[in-house]
Formats: sequence, C-alpha cells, structure tokens
Amino acid sequence: MEFTASQIASFIDGQIIGDESTVITGVSPIESGESGHLSFIAQDRFSHFLDTSKCSVIIVSEKLIDKVNYNPTLIVVKDAYLSFQILMNLYQEMQGRKEGIETGSSIHDTAVIGEKVYIGAFTYVSEKAKIGEGSQIYPHVYIGKGVKIGKNCKIDSGARIYDYCIIGDNCVIHSNTVVGGDGFGFQPTAEGFKKIPQLGNVIIEDDVEIGSNCSIDRATIGSTVIGKGTKIDNLIQIAHNVKIGQNNVIAAQAGIAGSTTIGDWNQIGGQVGVVGHIKIGNQVKIQAQSGVNSSVNDKETLYGSPAISYNDYLRNYVHFRNFTEIVKRINNLEDISKDKTNE
Amino acid sequence: MEFTASQIASFIDGQIIGDESTVITGVSPIESGESGHLSFIAQDRFSHFLDTSKCSVIIVSEKLIDKVNYNPTLIVVKDAYLSFQILMNLYQEMQGRKEGIETGSSIHDTAVIGEKVYIGAFTYVSEKAKIGEGSQIYPHVYIGKGVKIGKNCKIDSGARIYDYCIIGDNCVIHSNTVVGGDGFGFQPTAEGFKKIPQLGNVIIEDDVEIGSNCSIDRATIGSTVIGKGTKIDNLIQIAHNVKIGQNNVIAAQAGIAGSTTIGDWNQIGGQVGVVGHIKIGNQVKIQAQSGVNSSVNDKETLYGSPAISYNDYLRNYVHFRNFTEIVKRINNLEDISKDKTNE
Amino acid sequence: MEFTASQIASFIDGQIIGDESTVITGVSPIESGESGHLSFIAQDRFSHFLDTSKCSVIIVSEKLIDKVNYNPTLIVVKDAYLSFQILMNLYQEMQGRKEGIETGSSIHDTAVIGEKVYIGAFTYVSEKAKIGEGSQIYPHVYIGKGVKIGKNCKIDSGARIYDYCIIGDNCVIHSNTVVGGDGFGFQPTAEGFKKIPQLGNVIIEDDVEIGSNCSIDRATIGSTVIGKGTKIDNLIQIAHNVKIGQNNVIAAQAGIAGSTTIGDWNQIGGQVGVVGHIKIGNQVKIQAQSGVNSSVNDKETLYGSPAISYNDYLRNYVHFRNFTEIVKRINNLEDISKDKTNE
Repeated sequence: MEFTASQIASFIDGQIIGDESTVITGVSPIESGESGHLSFIAQDRFSHFLDTSKCSVIIVSEKLIDKVNYNPTLIVVKDAYLSFQILMNLYQEMQGRKEGIETGSSIHDTAVIGEKVYIGAFTYVSEKAKIGEGSQIYPHVYIGKGVKIGKNCKIDSGARIYDYCIIGDNCVIHSNTVVGGDGFGFQPTAEGFKKIPQLGNVIIEDDVEIGSNCSIDRATIGSTVIGKGTKIDNLIQIAHNVKIGQNNVIAAQAGIAGSTTIGDWNQIGGQVGVVGHIKIGNQVKIQAQSGVNSSVNDKETLYGSPAISYNDYLRNYVHFRNFTEIVKRINNLEDISKDKTNE
Repeated sequence: MEFTASQIASFIDGQIIGDESTVITGVSPIESGESGHLSFIAQDRFSHFLDTSKCSVIIVSEKLIDKVNYNPTLIVVKDAYLSFQILMNLYQEMQGRKEGIETGSSIHDTAVIGEKVYIGAFTYVSEKAKIGEGSQIYPHVYIGKGVKIGKNCKIDSGARIYDYCIIGDNCVIHSNTVVGGDGFGFQPTAEGFKKIPQLGNVIIEDDVEIGSNCSIDRATIGSTVIGKGTKIDNLIQIAHNVKIGQNNVIAAQAGIAGSTTIGDWNQIGGQVGVVGHIKIGNQVKIQAQSGVNSSVNDKETLYGSPAISYNDYLRNYVHFRNFTEIVKRINNLEDISKDKTNE
Repeated sequence: MEFTASQIASFIDGQIIGDESTVITGVSPIESGESGHLSFIAQDRFSHFLDTSKCSVIIVSEKLIDKVNYNPTLIVVKDAYLSFQILMNLYQEMQGRKEGIETGSSIHDTAVIGEKVYIGAFTYVSEKAKIGEGSQIYPHVYIGKGVKIGKNCKIDSGARIYDYCIIGDNCVIHSNTVVGGDGFGFQPTAEGFKKIPQLGNVIIEDDVEIGSNCSIDRATIGSTVIGKGTKIDNLIQIAHNVKIGQNNVIAAQAGIAGSTTIGDWNQIGGQVGVVGHIKIGNQVKIQAQSGVNSSVNDKETLYGSPAISYNDYLRNYVHFRNFTEIVKRINNLEDISKDKTNE
C-alpha cells in the first residue's frame, strides 16, 4: 500500500500537523515503529512516542496534543483507536476479494457455484454442493457431497467440509479446520470397539468464525450446531451433537465433549475442557484450563479442574500455596495439645 | 435416502402400527424430530415422544407400547436401540464405497495399487507405496515413499502418511492427521539445539481409527506403534517411540510423550497428558485433564495433575473446595490454644 | 539402505570383531533388534544384548567388550552413542534432497524460485513469493502473496504459509501447520463481535523447527516472531503478536496467548498455557500442564495452574494428597479442644 498523510486524513476526517504529502507504505505498532510507516496513539502512556517514534505518520487523539510542532506528521482525531480501526477496515476492503475459478480446481458437474465466487486451484467440490454468491474458497479445500456454503464466506486453504454440512453467510473458516468428521462413537464388545455410524452433519450459522486446525465433528444423527456470531479460536475440539448458541467466544485449544449444550454470550478460556451431556447457560465465563464437569447456570464464573466458582478457587488456591505452612501450624497445635495432655 | 415404513420394518424384522406406506427421507434425534424423518425410542423416559414427536416413523421397543393407535407410524421391535443401530449400519453400507482413480491424482509408476481402490484427485502417492484392496484414499492425501496401507482402509482428505509407515487393514484415518512426522528430538549444545535424525516409522495395526488433526510421530529408530483395535479421537499427540497396545480408547486433545508404553483396554480421557518413558498397564482409566507422571498398574483409575487415585483426588478436592473454612477452623484452634496458654 | 559392516566401520573409524562382510538393511532399537539390522550399545545395562540380540551388526563402546567372540558382528568405537548419531546423520544426508518442480504444482509468474529448489505437485505459490536456494516444498503446500522463504528450508505437505510471512534459512515446518492465519481479535458490540482486521505477519528466524498441526497467528499489526534456533513441537498455539526469543524448546499442545514475550533458552512443557500480555525471561522451565498467568523472572522453574514455584507446588501437592488425613487431624484437635473446654 502507499498513501499520503492527506489521503489518510480524508478517510478519517482528521487534521494534519506537519507535511501532508508524507508517504506511508506500511503500518507498525507504536512500540516498534519504522520509518515510512503509519501508527496511532490513543493513550497518554504512549504519548512520549510522539517525539521518539520512527513512524512517518501518527494518528493521535486530540487530547494528547500539547505543542505546535512534532517530528512525525500527525493526523489529529477525536479517538485515535477508533479512527485507526476504521482505517484498517477500509484497508482490508481495498485489498479486494478474489474472484473466478482457478485452473486446476475440481468441481463436480452437479455443484452449484454462485456469482463472484473464488475457487482456488486444487480445491475439490463434490456433487450437489452449493457455494453462495461472493464466497471465496482458497486452494486445497475439500467440499463434500451436498454441502451448502452461504454468501460472502471465506474458507481458507486446506479446510475440509464433509458431506451435507451447512455453513451460513459471512462465515470464515481458517486453514486445516475439519468440519463434519465422524464423531467419536464406539460400542465396547468383548472383541473390541464397534463403530457407531455417524450419519448427522454440522450446521454453522451466519457470521461464525472458526480458527485453524479445529475439529468440529458431525452429529451421530441430527446436527452439531455452531450458533450465529460465535467465534472459535484455533485447535479446538467440538464433539458430535454439541449445540453452541450465539455470540460465544471460545479460546484456543478448548474442547467440548459430545452432546453438551452451550447458550449465548459465553466466554470459554483457552485449554478449557467441558464434559459431555451437560448444559451451560448464558454469559458464563470459564477461566483458562478449567475442567467443567457439571451444568452451569447463567452468569457464573468458573475456575479449576473440576471447575468451581472463580472466587472460591482463587481463595482456596492461596491456601494451597501456603499448605506447607498450614501443616506446620497443625503440627504445632498437635504438639501443644500433646504437651497439655502430658502435663 | 427415501424408504417406506414397511421397507424399514423388513430390515429389522419389526411389526408396524399405523400406515406402512409412510415415507421417510431422513433421520432425527427424538428430542428434535422432524416431519418425514425416522427416529427411535428405547427408554421409558422418552416414551412421551410417542405422542408428541413430529417424526413420521418411530422404531420403538415393544415394552413401551401401551395403546392401539399412535400419531406417527410405529415399528415395534424387541430392542429399539439395537434395531436402530443395525439400520444405521445398513444405511451406511448402502452409501457404497468409492472406487477408481480420479483424474488429477499423482501416483508414482512404482506404486502398487490394489483392486477396487479409490484414489481422489490431488492425492499424491510416492514411489513403492502399496495400497491394499478396497481402500479409499480421499482427495489431497499425501502418501510417502514405501508406505504400506492394508485392505479396506479409509484415509480422509488432507491426511499425511510419511515415508515407510505401515497401516493395517480396516483402518480409518481422518482429515489432516499426520502419521510419521519427525519426533521432537534435539540435543542441546552451547550454540543451540542440534536435530537428532528421526529415522523410524509408525506402525498402525488393523482396525485402528484415528480422528482428525492428530500428530503421530515416527520413532527415532524402530517404530511408534498403535495396536489393533485402538480408537483415537481428534487433536491428539502421540510422540516418537510410543507403543500403544490393543483396544484402547483415547479422547480428544490427549498427549502421550516419547517412549511411553501403554497396554490394552485402557481409557484415556480428553486433554490428558502422559509423560515420556513410563509404562501404563491394562484396563486403566485416566480422568480428563489428568497429568500422569509415573507408571501405572493394571485397573487403576486416576485423576489430577500429577495424577493420583481417582477416589483420593475427589475426596481431597472436596477439602480443597472448603479450604477457606478449614483454615478458619485452624485459626480458631490457635486462638483457643493461645487463650489456654494465657490462662 | 544396504551396507556392510566394513563400510559402516569406515564411516565411524571402528574396529570390527566378527564378519566384516555382514550386510545390514535397517536399524533397530537394541531392545527389539531384528536380524539384518544394525543397533548400538553404549551403556552397561544394555550389554547383555551383546549375546542375545538378533541384530546382525552392533556398534559398541570399547569399555563394554570383555571377550573375544560374539554372536553378532561388532564395531568397536570409543563412544557408541556418538558414533551412532554420526552414522544416522550421514545416512540422512545420503537420502539426498529432492530437487525440481513437479508437474501439477501452481506457481505464479511473479514468484521467484531459487536454485535447486524442490516444489511438489499440488503446491500453490502465490504472486511475488520468494523461495530460497535448496529449499524443499513438499506437495499440497500453500504459499501466500509476498511470502519469503530462506535457503535450505523444508516445508512439509499441507503446511500453509499466509501472505507476507517471512521464514529464515534452515527452517523445518512440518505437515498441516498454519503460519500467518488471522489472530483471534474481536470487539464486543451489542449486536455481536466485530472482527478487528489482522494485518500483520509472522517472522520465523533461522534454524527454527515447527512440528505438525501448529497454529502460528499473524500479528494484528507488526509481527509475531519466532526467534532463531527455537524448536516447537506439534499441535501448538502461538497467538498474534507473541514474540519468542532464541533457542527455546516448546513441547506439544502448549499454547501462548496474544502479545506475550518470551526470552531465550526457555523450556516450556507439554499442554502448558501462558496468558497474554506477560513477559517470560530466560532459562525458565515450565512444567507440563502448568498455567502461567503472570510474568516470570529468569531461571525460575514453575508448576501448577496458576503456576507457582515448582518445589512449592510439589511440596504443597504432597499435603493435598494427604488432605483427608489432615482434616482428620483437625477434627481430632477440635475434639480434644472441646473435651478440654467441657472438662
């Protein structure tokens, strides 16, 4: 990218202090600014960078301005953080969407491909699959039989979407994530474990984003569901028949076991494990690495394995940290008690 | 699929109550039945669905029948759960296996491909690899030099099987699982870590199923082994030189460190970690999220990090949950003791 | 491979006891030696295998020799472990590097491919990407726009390297690892979570090895950095804007949350979680499954969730294991105290 300070100022309705023709070719975090780059300062604790940053152009909140001349060119706005976000979104849109079917992809005759779709080389689209208008399917993606993908989705390289799974509009699925693999269901017999056929699918509603290297298993029968607006980080396990509601945030490496139901607006930390067949309400917060083994009411905050109330866990853990000291106190009490008895 | 009630009844030797010409086009869990779908009821606690379900056809255990007319068409059998399983297996078989070599795959001249094999587009088969009769290799699979795959295996899209690995008969390996990547072996030197060559392979015996996004590392020398009938869920780490016996079940996101030996019929929970160079016996149960750091005898049940006896862990954890209360009791005892001493 | 005992002896400057024309075709660990294979014995506790091993040729440390005739052919050296390593390295080099562009790869006209590069079938190289001399890119790899890969790298099948990421010299990236996927950044609004554009990249310095199925997210702005010589195992999460220094070792399934900084020569155990926005010093050891939630000074050793000093954790955990006993002691003290009060 290459923009002048005055172009940037016009996007975000800012006032320029300095040379409006300064050109930027990239963006830096303010702590590691580079010459020729743009950055922003929205907080007082970073305002010393106004004088020391190597960045050529800095977007700055007006409350932080206290002199007339600065070394870099400044673009003064009400809220630099907000303006910077607007700019980054604009920039991303400018990058443009990919469009067209690349040579070397394999698309079944019966597949239905919408307008303005991108399908990368080496992507495999099976029979009767449907891909909605404006969706971008990167190279090396596998799309199974009868899969439906909505509009304006982005499916990254190496994702696998198995037979009959349904994906809504505006979804993002990152690289190497597997949607619709068989659930882990086996019946023990004297000779070994017998596979229970996994015949359901996965339904991913609108506006869902799923990170890379996740495994979202199809239901045994019926559907595994990821609700509208839910965001899932990397390396996450969602087992068969799990139902996840709307606007949840699930951090990396968490795992949800089979048939568990999760409501709306929950926050699930990294490496959390949730057992199967339980129900988690709404607005629940589960601290990283916790192990949830029973149903959870709305608005609870949990920690530990097995998980208990967050505050209780922390309070008890303080004692755990002092356990050796506590045992000494008990020893001491016993000594005193013995002395007393021996008196 | 499209079946009539009478066709279904004939597969499972059931008695029809209602319209034998009712057509079903799908299958639902009984809790979320849909019109035109089939479901089953095997337990008394679900028998109210006999009157309220939207399903068009329901397979039901005979003991649950207590009247003459029902809204949906019923198929009455001795054990509805068993009959439903039989039906699902039949259905899966009906789907048929894929067969033939798709255009766009890359198969080395020296590779040996058995009869009735399916090889999908964009799959890469290296020199001297052998693929047994009836095996299905989906698109985007990588098969290294000298790999041997047995009969009737299914290797899903994006799996990677590295050089000289051996896979038995009737194995299933799900998408994006990596079999035979280098083990994590480095020698520390003053200048940094020096790679220890990883020259062994992975041997996967018959009837093994491995979920998606797993990493099964090759041995340094010799073989990493997954024994007959063992079932491995998603996102699991099996390090170099691990030997796993027969009929184990390992849940998602568990990890087994290098050179550990695991016997037969063990159950390892989700997110469990097992350290390297230890020996786990047979019929051991390891609770989810446990960290096993020493060898384990047959039939033990473990929990915690580091893992101890399951019952001990739970009993002690009850006290942990009351730790603040317990410390108050100690404070109280000290107060009394001081009072006594001051008397 | 096929070598005679005398060929092997010449590589490592060893003395032969037995038939110097013995041919070996493979390598076994000494505990499970096979006829026709080579192995080594460097420790006294394995020396009984000199008489019982089925291996045809054994490299042995001279101090372990105490008779004139042995069943297998021996190659006597000063340090058998070291000699065996040398041999394995030699063997790996002999395997040769792959070279050349395979038919069926897709390379953009503007990409710059160095000398002696290997690019496998079905690999996708985007516009303006650069691949350095002698690097080997296996089949099914995705290389995004403007990516730079140094010299002598190995990128395994199914790895994904997203736009503008930079990889140094002599790096190894194993199968299905994703470098440069979007970081997990969303702004909560009343209607749901709004994506914060992720516009940075990942920089991987020289001599880094990254295992299979890892997710290394690009920075929001700026770079996520993996420092020179750092080795990363399988299934690991590195979030956006993390900076990792030199010569760290990170074991499987660990996760590092956003913007955390890690120094040099640290050892991070399997399944460890590190929260975001903290600083870990140098030469720190973090025990497997620990959860680190605050900054860590140089040379600390940690354990637990939340992590505390390793020794404290172990000491306190001993008491945790005896908690039921400890509570009985408190009960007992209370009984005595009550008796005393009632006297």
